Amino acid sequence: MVKDKEKSGVHENGESPIGSEGLYPDPELLLHKDPIDLAILKKLVGKSIISVDQFDREMVLEICKFAALLEATEIASSHPLDGKLIITAFFEASTRTRLSFESAVLRLDGKIISIPTGKSTGVAKGESLADIGEMFNAYGDLVVIRHTETNSVEEISRNLRLPLINAGNGSGQHPTQALADWFAILKWKPKLKATEVDAKDKIHLGILGTPGSMRAVNSFLRMSLIFKDGIHSISIISEMADPLGPELQKMLEESEIEFKVTNDINTVLSDLDVIYMNSIAFLGDSYKTLDSRFKLDSNSNLKKDAVVLHPLARLDELDPALDGTDHNLYFTQAHGAVFIRQALMISILDRFDRLPEKEIPLKK
Amino acid sequence: MVKDKEKSGVHENGESPIGSEGLYPDPELLLHKDPIDLAILKKLVGKSIISVDQFDREMVLEICKFAALLEATEIASSHPLDGKLIITAFFEASTRTRLSFESAVLRLDGKIISIPTGKSTGVAKGESLADIGEMFNAYGDLVVIRHTETNSVEEISRNLRLPLINAGNGSGQHPTQALADWFAILKWKPKLKATEVDAKDKIHLGILGTPGSMRAVNSFLRMSLIFKDGIHSISIISEMADPLGPELQKMLEESEIEFKVTNDINTVLSDLDVIYMNSIAFLGDSYKTLDSRFKLDSNSNLKKDAVVLHPLARLDELDPALDGTDHNLYFTQAHGAVFIRQALMISILDRFDRLPEKEIPLKK
Amino acid sequence: MVKDKEKSGVHENGESPIGSEGLYPDPELLLHKDPIDLAILKKLVGKSIISVDQFDREMVLEICKFAALLEATEIASSHPLDGKLIITAFFEASTRTRLSFESAVLRLDGKIISIPTGKSTGVAKGESLADIGEMFNAYGDLVVIRHTETNSVEEISRNLRLPLINAGNGSGQHPTQALADWFAILKWKPKLKATEVDAKDKIHLGILGTPGSMRAVNSFLRMSLIFKDGIHSISIISEMADPLGPELQKMLEESEIEFKVTNDINTVLSDLDVIYMNSIAFLGDSYKTLDSRFKLDSNSNLKKDAVVLHPLARLDELDPALDGTDHNLYFTQAHGAVFIRQALMISILDRFDRLPEKEIPLKK
Repeated sequence: MVKDKEKSGVHENGESPIGSEGLYPDPELLLHKDPIDLAILKKLVGKSIISVDQFDREMVLEICKFAALLEATEIASSHPLDGKLIITAFFEASTRTRLSFESAVLRLDGKIISIPTGKSTGVAKGESLADIGEMFNAYGDLVVIRHTETNSVEEISRNLRLPLINAGNGSGQHPTQALADWFAILKWKPKLKATEVDAKDKIHLGILGTPGSMRAVNSFLRMSLIFKDGIHSISIISEMADPLGPELQKMLEESEIEFKVTNDINTVLSDLDVIYMNSIAFLGDSYKTLDSRFKLDSNSNLKKDAVVLHPLARLDELDPALDGTDHNLYFTQAHGAVFIRQALMISILDRFDRLPEKEIPLKK
Repeated sequence: MVKDKEKSGVHENGESPIGSEGLYPDPELLLHKDPIDLAILKKLVGKSIISVDQFDREMVLEICKFAALLEATEIASSHPLDGKLIITAFFEASTRTRLSFESAVLRLDGKIISIPTGKSTGVAKGESLADIGEMFNAYGDLVVIRHTETNSVEEISRNLRLPLINAGNGSGQHPTQALADWFAILKWKPKLKATEVDAKDKIHLGILGTPGSMRAVNSFLRMSLIFKDGIHSISIISEMADPLGPELQKMLEESEIEFKVTNDINTVLSDLDVIYMNSIAFLGDSYKTLDSRFKLDSNSNLKKDAVVLHPLARLDELDPALDGTDHNLYFTQAHGAVFIRQALMISILDRFDRLPEKEIPLKK
Repeated sequence: MVKDKEKSGVHENGESPIGSEGLYPDPELLLHKDPIDLAILKKLVGKSIISVDQFDREMVLEICKFAALLEATEIASSHPLDGKLIITAFFEASTRTRLSFESAVLRLDGKIISIPTGKSTGVAKGESLADIGEMFNAYGDLVVIRHTETNSVEEISRNLRLPLINAGNGSGQHPTQALADWFAILKWKPKLKATEVDAKDKIHLGILGTPGSMRAVNSFLRMSLIFKDGIHSISIISEMADPLGPELQKMLEESEIEFKVTNDINTVLSDLDVIYMNSIAFLGDSYKTLDSRFKLDSNSNLKKDAVVLHPLARLDELDPALDGTDHNLYFTQAHGAVFIRQALMISILDRFDRLPEKEIPLKK
């Protein structure tokens, strides 16, 4: 594969491509003996990304493999999004997610028009999201939306004729985050791609937070159930009596994965292979100072090979003392999100023909 | 003409190019047997767009025909604004208008630097607009400005050497909106282009609002007087005793168009061919809940062929129930604004030579 | 040298290239018989610009000569920043400085992702700057940061692996402003480049403000000491008893430049060759209405050839009545800042090979 020395984000020799701390698994391992199946990715052409529920295992794998290819190969010079205009509509401000999408687009030579905050838009003055959607029809080719209200995606879709990517809707879902989460996990342990996983390779997954009311945790749990063949048990660590709600509870029961709820991470920590954390404080009214039952630091009794995921931004629940350790998969997770979003946008906008053919290991 | 399947905004077979609801007249009808006269458009080179009063009938027609060409033809691939930097300075925030301009620029391969709100600028701290104008000289090639103050355009022009487009100045004018309004009307009824219009084709125009104090309505009325040969009467629907003010009153009287003022749309609605609405609530302090005398919904007694214009955003004065009907010319109006702004910017920045020659029907 | 008629910012025949008021010295005089030494500029590759203290005389001269070349020559068409993504992170909003950087980047065909204000970022919610820096690693190639806190640059650099340009950190420094200040002075009087300056050419420099606590003044004074061979005395005009603080006081003493502190500009004005002003009111809590002891207007007793610098924005300390005079070097100073920033970014990102070779007078 062609490597451009200037490219940031290229992984070689197992080192972080950007000199960042933490674990950086080689994305090419995801592609090993497993060429990309374009026929599956092409099902995304013109489609919106609304919820994790629209994906099956096969689709998630192809998206992650495509993202791995983008991470491992220099394809920016083929300008895959040339002439495409993406609208980043962050009615709920989120610098981190907005910049991630905008960087993803600009690196592929697409263009951006941006609503960085909903505070001074027509919406703030009483305009309907349906009318905003109709407006977007005339202005761009794809809409990325984040909003404080769960029904926002449904509202804006009423008149919107462009494909849309849900970048977080109230207490609903955040599907591209869940894809980025599992992209990191699959790079870390490619064996989890399979439907038959050896008992010794199956993981015990710990999830801190309240999947029933927090969108990132909700989407992560749903995505995890897609890969249930590689999970022997799930522990939810939450101070809520019922952190799942009836729908997720039923899904977990039907998955036949062993699961339990605890209100202290220390009761399960030493057995966890993957710990998924989140920053509760960012959920507005439900803010609460967390105590040690929900935090990780350098004294935490982590399993030697355990990895930690966090969609960031973090507050004090995740001590930076862990940044320099191999438990840190969260920086890889954040960096990988850019490639996941690129893979989705190239697919939705059907720009496969702009990719340099010889660089792509395709399924015959 | 070359069509690019990927282009959004291309009209064919009378259907909405983007699948939106409402009436989408074919822009090519505006060009029919009437080639574009570049000599007239070239008068705009280096000029600012400040007020409707700077336009005559001939100029408005050429701008609208050029916009129709841009709507009907794929010219983006010739990169007409390549290397040009446009400053969108929205000291009064307006997501809709800002995105319309930014989309217009980016589609033509120009570049944008943006002030999305005046809240955190030097102006907020006491810097003069004259100094801001001087600053812009060093940064770009054209300035689009919206401001809460009517004298802002004059102030910033004191030191500004770049051409400027007024995108709404206080209770002053909004000339590109008025061009977009009449672009929609002329596409809907190209016969109104002529100076001799058959009596049966002349329209009765209804205007909801207060032209004397609302910039969009003011500019629309002034632009309408440029096309007075196609208008047999104008009805102003307003709760104000004197919605026009002395200047517009005098202009209307001199136009010899029959006109009247009423405070209930229902007294004239069944005779109106074109109804121009506006959202009163967006005028800050003067907000008022409107009652049915100033609203349209599916029960309104609209003439069969009547069309409705609205510069959007709307509140409840215009019921979305009308969106799916052929009365809806307001979505066409919004989409057309992008092409009007492109036509203006290509003209002001003298980039006619970047247009693909064989695609343009030019006057010999 | 190739001139593009369309380029704004090209200086010819001693007139302002953009028709602005004030003095516009020819940038080519800086290059006269003094070719650019790329070996020195290449020391900037991959480096951050944090403080004036990192520069020596030789480096400042090469940066200014490179900026002069960019001002005098049309090099945009060689797309020197093509494919590079610059993050403009203005946690402290500053429209003027942000647009200056963004214009500099876009004119060279680089790309921008922007944080125009810190109000709605994760930082506002408690995220650490170190985490923000780590995030930037994945998103861009160079970071421009402005922040209200002096320690912000140090904080964000903890995890940042990209080069950074400090665009103002609290009461710390503003090195690119100081480079722009001296770029203007050196264009005005190229003789100040030399280490041996005739007594009659040496300048008396007046500085209004408090170098010890105002970053722009602080950086300007430090930069002035780099060119001490051309300065015979410095007068600080401030209402503070100790406007310098111990560090700057010591530096001034060691420079062997004659210096004094006064609290009334009128006591020294008639002898000053260069007057550096600043807008005290923008320092937050320390706002104070200035009286005539700290102001300039058309009645001020300026020496015939004296020039005034001001980093802008200004309030009433600098009367616009001076704009049309040859005392006005502040508009040149503002415009030149764009070229200084371009020179820095091309150097840091090592894009010398994108410059059109034959246009550059290089040292053999």
